[in-house]
Amino acid sequence: MPAPPDPSRDLQARHAELRARYADLQARGLRLDMTRGKPSPEQLDLSEGLLALPGNRDHRAESGEDARNYGGVQGLAEVRALFSGVLGAPPEQIAVGNNSSLALMHDCIAYALLKGVPGGAAPWSREEIRFICPVPGYDRHFALCETYGIGMLSVPMTPRGPDMDAVEDLARDPAVRGMWAVPQYANPGGETYDDETVARLAGMATGAPDFRLFWDNAYALHHLTDRRPALRNILEACAAAGRPDRPLVFASTSKVTLAGAGLAFLAASPANLRWYLACAGKRSIGPDKLNQLRHARFLRDAGGLERLMEGHRRLLAPKFRAVTDALARALAGTGAARWSEPAGGYFVLLEVPDGCASRVVELAAGCGLALTPAGATHPYGRDPRDRTLRLAPSYPSLGEVEAAAEVIALCTLLAAAENRQAGGSGQVSG
Amino acid sequence: MPAPPDPSRDLQARHAELRARYADLQARGLRLDMTRGKPSPEQLDLSEGLLALPGNRDHRAESGEDARNYGGVQGLAEVRALFSGVLGAPPEQIAVGNNSSLALMHDCIAYALLKGVPGGAAPWSREEIRFICPVPGYDRHFALCETYGIGMLSVPMTPRGPDMDAVEDLARDPAVRGMWAVPQYANPGGETYDDETVARLAGMATGAPDFRLFWDNAYALHHLTDRRPALRNILEACAAAGRPDRPLVFASTSKVTLAGAGLAFLAASPANLRWYLACAGKRSIGPDKLNQLRHARFLRDAGGLERLMEGHRRLLAPKFRAVTDALARALAGTGAARWSEPAGGYFVLLEVPDGCASRVVELAAGCGLALTPAGATHPYGRDPRDRTLRLAPSYPSLGEVEAAAEVIALCTLLAAAENRQAGGSGQVSG
Repeated sequence: MPAPPDPSRDLQARHAELRARYADLQARGLRLDMTRGKPSPEQLDLSEGLLALPGNRDHRAESGEDARNYGGVQGLAEVRALFSGVLGAPPEQIAVGNNSSLALMHDCIAYALLKGVPGGAAPWSREEIRFICPVPGYDRHFALCETYGIGMLSVPMTPRGPDMDAVEDLARDPAVRGMWAVPQYANPGGETYDDETVARLAGMATGAPDFRLFWDNAYALHHLTDRRPALRNILEACAAAGRPDRPLVFASTSKVTLAGAGLAFLAASPANLRWYLACAGKRSIGPDKLNQLRHARFLRDAGGLERLMEGHRRLLAPKFRAVTDALARALAGTGAARWSEPAGGYFVLLEVPDGCASRVVELAAGCGLALTPAGATHPYGRDPRDRTLRLAPSYPSLGEVEAAAEVIALCTLLAAAENRQAGGSGQVSG
Repeated sequence: MPAPPDPSRDLQARHAELRARYADLQARGLRLDMTRGKPSPEQLDLSEGLLALPGNRDHRAESGEDARNYGGVQGLAEVRALFSGVLGAPPEQIAVGNNSSLALMHDCIAYALLKGVPGGAAPWSREEIRFICPVPGYDRHFALCETYGIGMLSVPMTPRGPDMDAVEDLARDPAVRGMWAVPQYANPGGETYDDETVARLAGMATGAPDFRLFWDNAYALHHLTDRRPALRNILEACAAAGRPDRPLVFASTSKVTLAGAGLAFLAASPANLRWYLACAGKRSIGPDKLNQLRHARFLRDAGGLERLMEGHRRLLAPKFRAVTDALARALAGTGAARWSEPAGGYFVLLEVPDGCASRVVELAAGCGLALTPAGATHPYGRDPRDRTLRLAPSYPSLGEVEAAAEVIALCTLLAAAENRQAGGSGQVSG
């Protein structure tokens, strides 16, 4: 256990001591990985029952259709009904995809680029277009924009959601066609958009008539505490504001059942859903309905879903606590860092003194801990202040998370001390 | 049973008799569907074992990786090895997708349109481009071109494959970027490309340096007889001709295991595979590896695959025989039709007198038999001579297929008789 931090001691003065402790950590020969928000094997074990389902002779959906055969591009009605509450949409406004909601987001962007969307005058690829990106955000969202040449306009996150003054300002540009949002337990900051933010997103004027809000509700069910946020229903809010076609709502069971073999969902207005199904129906004769049936058999109902998520919480909450406790023990009062204490989701956001994030990653790697590359939380992988780190405590064991958190705290202190020595403040900026 | 046809009687003279027999068929109140190449429930039952696999606690791939979790965009090594022979490529040149090879073809086209392909100067969407389409062909291939505004250039099929003089001529145009091919048991004609056709496709000069051959080997294993065609390996042929990046080879287990819950494959040159994986890795964190493991457990090895296909053949061959026997009984010597006797694949091609195909479909519908719409075998759904019909005998029971074949034969005769009465020849053209 590290000694409790003494706020009165100057970080610079502690440099030699920190260096010595770092050498000790190096000598431990750790091999730890906190790069990605992957469920742990114990979490996957919660859905072990899926592995032998649906079981022999069980291949009929409630409609009587044979889930083994071709067809059914929208997905099974009972699965759409089961996730209707999660998505905040009636079953007829939901489509079920294969195992990746990222793939559904990709496909919506690809169809928009190649074909255009309802309410638009032309395929998006005909012009230079841009997306609004709350920052820090999800690297795979940004990678989709980057790979297709969609410009990214950063907007800072606040505890209530993205800075809406900035969003409204940018949205007036007709070249701005979309915006990313992880509205609940945001990746990586853990923020949940408040009612006013949702209302402003639904009601704001946009320069483009075919503006689309990519509402990636990846963590709709992923609570770490008893405080359940009541995220306002974006489909209802937009419909009430007379803009029903603005949002595209995504979710998946990747962090509910099996990360690589779950179901993905799109919920949208009737016009958007017709558009999606027409495009998806050219791409494929239909999704894997047998995996849908498997999920229906395993989850059964909303109660089954709730109990499963409670199991995840029991496994995850101690890991998150281990991280934030270790950071508090080592860093409280030093001014060297600020971190989130998320009520849900998959990440802890750690902010360090400007210019220090990539050094923390480097130092951590030096004692066997792989962290998400600094900058990953920003468009083009560039954090202009090099101060943002995303910590992913889900996959390693609790013991490994505890060891990793100790490494992170020490590396942060050491980087801050180095920064101070080099003439910086060694303090995280406000 | 219809009376054996009398070649000497004029079709026109038989019109009243045919009309009376048609009225009898109508009175039977049939409800039959031969529209799509769907496996029958009995065929799906052959893979019943998949429904309880991989089974509890079995989630490790040979590499040790956990098939339940994220990752592995290329697919499990053991599955790539298992299908290496089918695809004619080493496992490292194979990627495994989710349940639809059509989706892989779509994605390759979408990536090419939005990003370009190796060897190309720009994304395909920057220009008006065209694909060569052997005709008759697969309607879903044509629909992909149509939805993305890719022009289609028809080339007639011959018993040896597409008319290669026409193909070589068209391929000289730099706007021609691709070509569809179902090289074995072609949809719908059943032809298998001969060695010279494959060699010419591999060796021909193309105006576009980034020309791609979309090699949809959908029926690689789908034999109906003991005569096994030896389709020349297109990847090897193109590599030998110094054009390794020309072909993109597709296959799936949709008609091997489960039509809606199988695996799809892409095999390609190292450069093409890197390109595909880089694009697919932006779209999704990886395919459903658990379904891959399920298939590895169920199929086991090439022998398992072979035995399974033998089971399909036992179910399918009698249905195909029922169709061609019924056509022969009713139509031989009348000159009113010509049909394929396929050695594999999923379709019987029926050619009727010019201008009669849509009338046959209409007449069949009138007595309760749904056929694929006339024109579906041609780009834009337009068969300029209105003479081509695709029959799909796989899904209905043998008894239903027998009844349907009788309907088709009679409707063909009746349409031909009507054609003769209206001043046509009533004869299928040469």
